[in-house]
Amino acid sequence: MTAHPAIDADRVVADLRELAKRTSDERGAQRLCWTDTWLEARTFLRELLAEIDVESEIDEAGNLWTVPGTGADCVTLGSHLDSVPDGGWLDGALGVMAAVGVLRAHVDEAPARPLVLVDWADEEGARFGYSLFGSSAFAGSLDPAAVAGLRDSEGKTMRDVLSDHDVDIDQAPECAGRREGLAAYLELHIEQGPVMETDGVTVAAVTGCQGIERVRFSFKGQAAHAGTTPMAMRRDAGLAAASCATQVAALPGVHGGVATTGELRLDPGISTAVAGNAELSCDLRNPDAERLASMLGGASEAARQSADAHGCKVSEEPVFRIAPTSFDPGLVATATAACQAATGRSFEITSGALHDAASVSRVMPAAMMFCPSRGGISHASVEDTSEDDLRVAIECFGAFAGKVLAS
Amino acid sequence: MTAHPAIDADRVVADLRELAKRTSDERGAQRLCWTDTWLEARTFLRELLAEIDVESEIDEAGNLWTVPGTGADCVTLGSHLDSVPDGGWLDGALGVMAAVGVLRAHVDEAPARPLVLVDWADEEGARFGYSLFGSSAFAGSLDPAAVAGLRDSEGKTMRDVLSDHDVDIDQAPECAGRREGLAAYLELHIEQGPVMETDGVTVAAVTGCQGIERVRFSFKGQAAHAGTTPMAMRRDAGLAAASCATQVAALPGVHGGVATTGELRLDPGISTAVAGNAELSCDLRNPDAERLASMLGGASEAARQSADAHGCKVSEEPVFRIAPTSFDPGLVATATAACQAATGRSFEITSGALHDAASVSRVMPAAMMFCPSRGGISHASVEDTSEDDLRVAIECFGAFAGKVLAS
Repeated sequence: MTAHPAIDADRVVADLRELAKRTSDERGAQRLCWTDTWLEARTFLRELLAEIDVESEIDEAGNLWTVPGTGADCVTLGSHLDSVPDGGWLDGALGVMAAVGVLRAHVDEAPARPLVLVDWADEEGARFGYSLFGSSAFAGSLDPAAVAGLRDSEGKTMRDVLSDHDVDIDQAPECAGRREGLAAYLELHIEQGPVMETDGVTVAAVTGCQGIERVRFSFKGQAAHAGTTPMAMRRDAGLAAASCATQVAALPGVHGGVATTGELRLDPGISTAVAGNAELSCDLRNPDAERLASMLGGASEAARQSADAHGCKVSEEPVFRIAPTSFDPGLVATATAACQAATGRSFEITSGALHDAASVSRVMPAAMMFCPSRGGISHASVEDTSEDDLRVAIECFGAFAGKVLAS
Repeated sequence: MTAHPAIDADRVVADLRELAKRTSDERGAQRLCWTDTWLEARTFLRELLAEIDVESEIDEAGNLWTVPGTGADCVTLGSHLDSVPDGGWLDGALGVMAAVGVLRAHVDEAPARPLVLVDWADEEGARFGYSLFGSSAFAGSLDPAAVAGLRDSEGKTMRDVLSDHDVDIDQAPECAGRREGLAAYLELHIEQGPVMETDGVTVAAVTGCQGIERVRFSFKGQAAHAGTTPMAMRRDAGLAAASCATQVAALPGVHGGVATTGELRLDPGISTAVAGNAELSCDLRNPDAERLASMLGGASEAARQSADAHGCKVSEEPVFRIAPTSFDPGLVATATAACQAATGRSFEITSGALHDAASVSRVMPAAMMFCPSRGGISHASVEDTSEDDLRVAIECFGAFAGKVLAS
């Protein structure tokens, strides 16, 4: 094993605390992309980089890269500084600050391969509903025309808001030019789920991201008076949706993965009326593409059967889909070995959440590491990981990056 | 059978059309109680009464009575002019205009028993959420202190709005003094359901009103990320509520009656999160008090089982309850005989909806007649009954009233 400079995990944790102090209020992190608070987070990042004489620049999609951004066989480390509103202190920020830590560790001793840091723009999609903006532009999967007209809660278009930040959305895909010379992408993130905490694991190698099929079922029955309409004459869209939700929840028992029906709206939605219309969201995830397709087929069939059983019609609208991502086997193996060396356990996990690494892995070898999330909670001010666990994961990520940089 | 003057059904239908013309807009009837449009409806009623030299007065609860309002063994005919917003032309108005028709029929030939008309105030409860205001005051079941502080959508209290209409809500129960000398209450109404239309019945005797138990179940689980939370670790309040709704819908198969879960709200209610909280309304109706109690017990048990099955807690909040009402057997028999004589069929039905007659029957013999509702639809601008069916029902109600007045 090649020796490599050690990362200063205490300093990374201190940087995360300082970032939280500067960009949070009593309700949590407020680093919503394309806002002043997000810019403050980047100002802090630039301060940290300036300490080690590293400059940065912004690409066509608003992603921040350290300079020089390219170089033959270059290793890229990154994540995102943007957060959801009322978010947590670690989601995204951990990966960026750990990447700064790796750069800091190599200040006095240049690694065998060049090293670059990237802070992706608008990973969360919390403002316009489009996730992975910067990394999808980089990976060539962004269609500017399809998203430029999306509006935030104040009615401003994505095109106009990005323009205020000197980003021409039509030019965003040009940032793909940065791929030249980049040969690997590594990202540290919190799990955002309860699996590692439950298993007592402090750091894990991530094998890939589950694929997602997200659809919305609209059930159409007949609104009717709760007192005067006999049961046999009802066409209850609410019961059709409830029955469908119950059946969808059983799909993972057959196909693996997870299935969630978190959005269910009844119309008219009052206690004294049979629901004439019901909308049910259905979020299906599976690491295997064929199984994911089977889940979607099963959900559609459940919706049709439930509609039939209650005299309703049902229509299905696709909302979002992304194919399963498998990270680079060689990088995953290196990450797993680093976890084993650091903790005596080699734990591998498939990410249930989306990450920039899922975009990036479509165009270059990529891999991730996770540290546990207390109670599995994320996207909330109570999002947390113990400092002890953070230090183990940051040091392990430093060792992983060092290994790749030396390879 | 005693001969009695015939009601002019065409005139009653014409009056209903004129009332609709004066008090509706393109979205339907707008006779919301305690509004100018409702007062216009009463102005029209007074015009009709003035034609036949009948005066009227308002009691302590805002109910309108013809004068003299009392007299030994007096027969009361009535219903309500107020409507829900965007309501139909017949709900309530039919009974008041038919009562005017009976008064008109007896102008030249006084019946054996005195006759009085009542237009109950705020039957719908559409503005403050409290139904049967005027008739419950009359029947002694109104608690002014419990409702005076209810607010309308503009934040005005019931006490203040009623005060603007010269009604002191604390004095409303004093209208019970009007009971003296009143011996029977008869009301014609639309069914507001699909049973009669389906059976091809044009007029029916109503045997009573179903009792109601309305509760709200609050399921508490744990909100969680749709991608990162394994199925086995979820505490999905939405699935608990969906399962409960499905079980509640099966209760009428065991106990009779009807069960409705028309309100279901998930929190956070987004497609990418397991619902941490869910609220489910449960409206149970049954003409039999014991069976109604069994339905409520069954719903509570279903809620507990569903909560347990999904690792959730559940609490139950009573929202509304009213005991089943049986109308006066003698009056119902007279109504049934009138239906048989008019149409060759004696059809009896239990009302699924609440009516002023349910209040009144607690303090004096009462009965109702129904005519069918097209498509079973009410509380909507498309609420309708064919003029042919209306004429049959109005004439039958006139004969029923004539029989009672002559008895």
